[in-house]
Amino acid sequence: MSESYKFEGWVAKNKDSVKGQLVWEEYTPKPFEETDVDIQMGEESDGDADGMAEIEAVRDLSADTLSFGLITHCGICASDLHTLRSGWGETDYPQVVGHEIVGKVVKVGSKVTHLKLGDRVGVGAQAGSCLNCEYCTRGDEPYCNKGMIGTYGGRFPDNSKSYGGYADYTRVPAHFVFKIPDGIPSDIVAPMMCGGVTVYSPLKQGGAAPGKRVGVVGIGGLGHFALLFGKAMGADMVAISHSKSKKADAEKMGVKQFISTHDDENWSEANARSLDLIVCTANNSDMPIQKYLRLLKPGSSFILVGAPEEPLPQIPAFAFISHNVFLGGSLIGGTKIIEEMLQVAVKSDVKTWIQVRNMKDANAAVVDMDAGKARYRYVLVNEKHANL
Amino acid sequence: MSESYKFEGWVAKNKDSVKGQLVWEEYTPKPFEETDVDIQMGEESDGDADGMAEIEAVRDLSADTLSFGLITHCGICASDLHTLRSGWGETDYPQVVGHEIVGKVVKVGSKVTHLKLGDRVGVGAQAGSCLNCEYCTRGDEPYCNKGMIGTYGGRFPDNSKSYGGYADYTRVPAHFVFKIPDGIPSDIVAPMMCGGVTVYSPLKQGGAAPGKRVGVVGIGGLGHFALLFGKAMGADMVAISHSKSKKADAEKMGVKQFISTHDDENWSEANARSLDLIVCTANNSDMPIQKYLRLLKPGSSFILVGAPEEPLPQIPAFAFISHNVFLGGSLIGGTKIIEEMLQVAVKSDVKTWIQVRNMKDANAAVVDMDAGKARYRYVLVNEKHANL
Repeated sequence: MSESYKFEGWVAKNKDSVKGQLVWEEYTPKPFEETDVDIQMGEESDGDADGMAEIEAVRDLSADTLSFGLITHCGICASDLHTLRSGWGETDYPQVVGHEIVGKVVKVGSKVTHLKLGDRVGVGAQAGSCLNCEYCTRGDEPYCNKGMIGTYGGRFPDNSKSYGGYADYTRVPAHFVFKIPDGIPSDIVAPMMCGGVTVYSPLKQGGAAPGKRVGVVGIGGLGHFALLFGKAMGADMVAISHSKSKKADAEKMGVKQFISTHDDENWSEANARSLDLIVCTANNSDMPIQKYLRLLKPGSSFILVGAPEEPLPQIPAFAFISHNVFLGGSLIGGTKIIEEMLQVAVKSDVKTWIQVRNMKDANAAVVDMDAGKARYRYVLVNEKHANL
Repeated sequence: MSESYKFEGWVAKNKDSVKGQLVWEEYTPKPFEETDVDIQMGEESDGDADGMAEIEAVRDLSADTLSFGLITHCGICASDLHTLRSGWGETDYPQVVGHEIVGKVVKVGSKVTHLKLGDRVGVGAQAGSCLNCEYCTRGDEPYCNKGMIGTYGGRFPDNSKSYGGYADYTRVPAHFVFKIPDGIPSDIVAPMMCGGVTVYSPLKQGGAAPGKRVGVVGIGGLGHFALLFGKAMGADMVAISHSKSKKADAEKMGVKQFISTHDDENWSEANARSLDLIVCTANNSDMPIQKYLRLLKPGSSFILVGAPEEPLPQIPAFAFISHNVFLGGSLIGGTKIIEEMLQVAVKSDVKTWIQVRNMKDANAAVVDMDAGKARYRYVLVNEKHANL
């Protein structure tokens, strides 16, 4: 590697990393290929108005690459915590998490056609797939027949590891790097790259639209996005939450109804068959799924996006048969749906509810996130570049 | 009641009835309403070519009714056995089961407009619903907001019991009585009224059509119908069965592939993502659902129509999320889908694989059915009228 920059970030060494024990240090990214881009996330700008000095400095590195550098934002996603503590199976430590990334392109492979140096770009939860199967070719890359490679925690075909966005730079195959449209701030869009599309995708698949009533189970990071995007799509949104503690927030997000499963014992029967779709963002394995299914109109679906670490509870077959309801799952979103979501976000001015945390305070932010304090998304920002 | 005929049939007194202890005796049907029809199922014809003598005889019964009489066929459905042994909850004994009925109209309520005396008609598994809700008005009566009333084992709004087709006559609200199109024999069509539509409905909902590969789990009565109707709809059908014992039959039914889950340990991975839909007719609660889900292409569904008496096994959320697959259920079929199925059956000449049993031998037929001997549907026929 001959770049003028180093790959440094918050490295997880073991399960205790989730307790705020990430260590800032250098690591080795995947070997650069001509289909890759490097994205700068935290290197301090020299203040040059358009960064041209840096472009010149790096342009010599390779005849096939161009460079530019500016700023970083990285949202903190629940997946980061599951991974840090090996909750979804043993994590491939050392690891750098973070897959809600916005930054500027500092190196572009010669085979990359849709991005150029200096572009403000986003990266979500996926960094690789076969790109040839029927799912990849239709923009449904998370369901690639050969499996998806995560933005962190994965291995590329050459066995090099993928590392995420709690870092200064990231290197990502350009197919999974998106130009961010003008008109949407970086801190607002960063968490959409995973959290936003993870709910936008099932909202779209499940037909969220004017005239439809759509329930959202769990009002956390994903849930708040589901309420915002569902409303942007024209649906009447219904929040379904354990307690009423988030009722005022949900109302500000535009919900038509708030169902508290703790405060009303009869919540399921009282609201039976009232919803055309439910997006479930909760990830506790003891959820009352049968009661959630009861809320659905015949022919409609309950779609899991939050993944409990334990199997789902047993459900009687008649819960499905008697009401013609479906239980399914949805995994992040492919390139086609991410592009569409970005356009909807701009058009409807979707505003993520964020709390900015400094990249240097990532450990404290992770601990707060794990304690459920985020309202509703923490975004790590390098404060030196926050205004750029 | 002033009819010239008596309601007699095979009455179940308790759970032992499933062991061949049905008793032939008289019972009291629902009070006749002007939206009802009576259907004769076993009364011997006097041989009059068109039964006009009987019409005349019965026409005097009521100014609002007309009558005619001829013949009966009634298929034996797995639901009959579940009900006889109280497998789906305590049955409302005494009971007369059977909901795959074909007969001739012998009495027509004055408010009935779509049927007339002498019509050859069919009745499926449903005999009542509110007829006013959004599901009833669109022909999806099994999902009526007020609940469906079964052809047997149910209670009408006046609390009178519904009785099924192992009998001479049945009395059914005409909304749930279908004129059988010419060109399809009574013994062939009788089992379609429940078994046929129970699989036709999810095949239709799940998009069975040319270019689609559709799996069918369990090759029994329902499963054989799923293979026949799926093929009629143009799909490539795949049978999924425990052993290879039904392979030859399935091939005669036109399957493109036969997957034996017992003979090939790797059946699930070897056939991963090969199907656009699975209709599951099995009703054992220990089914390997996660392995079945693996067979589905992303975005497609596994639809239960056979109802296990115990809850489904636990399934990891990732089985749904990682592949964007859905588990749902489907309950018989509404009037709209039954009418459509009958047209498809005629057009494609769908031939139920039946074994004719005499109505007087219902007890033996029930025992044989419970032993899994049917290939693939028993049809009770009054032999005196089998050729009419």
